[in-house]
Amino acid sequence: MTDMKILVQKFGGTSVANLECMRRVQEKVLEGLAQGYKVITVLSARAGDTNKLLSLAEEWSPTPDRAACDVLVSTGEQVSISLFTMLLRDAGVRARSLLGWQIPITTDEDFGRARIRAIDSKALRAQLENYDVLVVAGFQGCTEDGRITTLGRGGSDTSAVALAAALGSVECHIFTDVDGVYTTDPNICSTARKMDRVAYEEMLEMSSMGAKVLHIRSVEFAKKYKVPVRVRSTFSDDPGTLVTQEDSSMEAVLVSGIAYDRDQARVTLRDLPDVPGMAAAVFGPLSEKGILVDMIVQNTSLDGHTDITFTISRKDLQQTLRIMDEVAKKTGASEVLHDVSVAKVSAIGVGMRNHSGVAARAFAALTQEGINILMISTSEIKITLLIQEKYLELAVRILHDTFGLDWDIG
Amino acid sequence: MTDMKILVQKFGGTSVANLECMRRVQEKVLEGLAQGYKVITVLSARAGDTNKLLSLAEEWSPTPDRAACDVLVSTGEQVSISLFTMLLRDAGVRARSLLGWQIPITTDEDFGRARIRAIDSKALRAQLENYDVLVVAGFQGCTEDGRITTLGRGGSDTSAVALAAALGSVECHIFTDVDGVYTTDPNICSTARKMDRVAYEEMLEMSSMGAKVLHIRSVEFAKKYKVPVRVRSTFSDDPGTLVTQEDSSMEAVLVSGIAYDRDQARVTLRDLPDVPGMAAAVFGPLSEKGILVDMIVQNTSLDGHTDITFTISRKDLQQTLRIMDEVAKKTGASEVLHDVSVAKVSAIGVGMRNHSGVAARAFAALTQEGINILMISTSEIKITLLIQEKYLELAVRILHDTFGLDWDIG
Repeated sequence: MTDMKILVQKFGGTSVANLECMRRVQEKVLEGLAQGYKVITVLSARAGDTNKLLSLAEEWSPTPDRAACDVLVSTGEQVSISLFTMLLRDAGVRARSLLGWQIPITTDEDFGRARIRAIDSKALRAQLENYDVLVVAGFQGCTEDGRITTLGRGGSDTSAVALAAALGSVECHIFTDVDGVYTTDPNICSTARKMDRVAYEEMLEMSSMGAKVLHIRSVEFAKKYKVPVRVRSTFSDDPGTLVTQEDSSMEAVLVSGIAYDRDQARVTLRDLPDVPGMAAAVFGPLSEKGILVDMIVQNTSLDGHTDITFTISRKDLQQTLRIMDEVAKKTGASEVLHDVSVAKVSAIGVGMRNHSGVAARAFAALTQEGINILMISTSEIKITLLIQEKYLELAVRILHDTFGLDWDIG
Repeated sequence: MTDMKILVQKFGGTSVANLECMRRVQEKVLEGLAQGYKVITVLSARAGDTNKLLSLAEEWSPTPDRAACDVLVSTGEQVSISLFTMLLRDAGVRARSLLGWQIPITTDEDFGRARIRAIDSKALRAQLENYDVLVVAGFQGCTEDGRITTLGRGGSDTSAVALAAALGSVECHIFTDVDGVYTTDPNICSTARKMDRVAYEEMLEMSSMGAKVLHIRSVEFAKKYKVPVRVRSTFSDDPGTLVTQEDSSMEAVLVSGIAYDRDQARVTLRDLPDVPGMAAAVFGPLSEKGILVDMIVQNTSLDGHTDITFTISRKDLQQTLRIMDEVAKKTGASEVLHDVSVAKVSAIGVGMRNHSGVAARAFAALTQEGINILMISTSEIKITLLIQEKYLELAVRILHDTFGLDWDIG
């Protein structure tokens, strides 16, 4: 049966939170069956369950053994898939549940954030000869010698995309509590528009900016294996947004979306001696402590001295300042400054690859409204600006308008 | 390493209920290690967890799919073993957790009450080359094609005994919240004495009478494979009671213990025609509905008519009476009587096999105190008497005294 039509559907924690929600999920599965698909339904743990299990682990151990923790946390999805399978079987559907090890979804041995190595698609197809719906536990796999692993936060999205890639399903539908990917946050910008399509690369940039619709690793996976991913709502019939390969119609649009991130703190080291190895002296100790540095700017050297400014997540600020005090002593920097009232706003679009002047238009639009740009970083398909947080909503609306993303303009 | 010393320890739900309890369990495991054993620790779900999961299943479905229910319920033990493994690893013990399918413990496909078919003891021994403690999920196994099964209530005892049988461990220690098996219930009889040893067959009779220390299936398993089982308390250092093969010292004792069961209801059909097939007409419909009949007495026929009296669990009384009304109509029985104020008391001992007069002594002792005996049934090693429930405590004390089970008499 090489012509078996397979659809992968993934539902997040809020979609399986309780019996009522699961009945909506059941409707989506029945729709898939009615369209002639064999359905692979990938479920997350019920909303809150994973956090409860992690709290339990922390009660038992300040630094829980990671392999044991995966055995614990993976029960969350096990509960979801068993309950949902009960519903389907009561409805007369030929369904069974499958845990990561039962497929198997083979991963490396990096417990707590394992990466998928292989999926036995032949065994899965054999299961689909006997069942119409396979209810698969997301977020989990097993090592080659049969130990349970988890894929890390957001891993259920990755499970779904990986299954779709392995099986060659037509589409992979990621159901969530929003009805698609928007040009920007509708809570900030009333003219935000749901996109019909968005390129993988654009989605990657939006995910990394904290647009929490799709987990970034799942988008990387989808891009690598060219899996079309449809972001949809469990609670509506909207077709949602298709995340797919870029094409000429996408490239015709200069900017596709405006993303933002409030979780930014800015740190500046003043008057560092401008000698080789200075960047390593500053950023080496941060990297050792697992602190991620986002934007970095180094001023032009003046009298053999320079300033280095960078941004980090706000939760890392205190630790970073302690480290920078040490660095300042060792290097002779004159002072360490910091500012938490900053935020990041980005314009993203595969279309800007072929056009110059996008950055200039963004700067002009913001400065015209009196918004000072503190830091700038650009990539092939993204312009990111650090501004004072109080201007964030205004900046999002200005950029959304400047690049013509409003619904009515189209 | 054929001379590896292996000890199997099993801890019930109250022993793993919380972190404090688990620390007591940890002490027992460390004691085993200090004595030079490799330890297999079998855990139940934390007290209450299994019932919570079953309630969840019932919320989702009036008759939950049994295979799906096993996937759900087996998470209870998975939580216990992962948390306990964290503790051991934090204490520097070379430990890992093992789920039923990881060993594997292979069972038949009777989901919800599966029976163990095989245990891969070679794989287990290989694990013991790398680990000093294997923390095994009780109550669960998997089918040959890798579906999760559970062994039914009390199944963790059976898991432990089966592992001990497969591995040939010196002893199997069943830890619970009492410090052994008593000659009778100490709450009723203040002179009740903890036994040092008890024969498998005696333990079987006590288990079936509701002495809830060991699950009856685990005792059958232990008897079949000659596994010495020690019943001990997690919360004391008492050596507990050894359940083992009978020997001459046990046979020298006429009666080893007095058991009782309040969960009895008596039903009588009056004036049944005494013709062949009558017993089938009465008990066939009960068996079809899964109602277990315990004691049965049929009076001597008088004028071609007879009375049949039997006992059942009280929860089955209403259903039984409805069925008996039908039976009475069909057979022409004159009336259906019932009584729920009855209880069962038994004297048990492998020693009574070789002695007559045990029953007579029991009858005499009870009638002397004015206790009327309603029904009698005897087996090779047990005498069971149905009496009015109000006399139960008195009857237990009289029999305990009559057969010299008191602590001081010894």
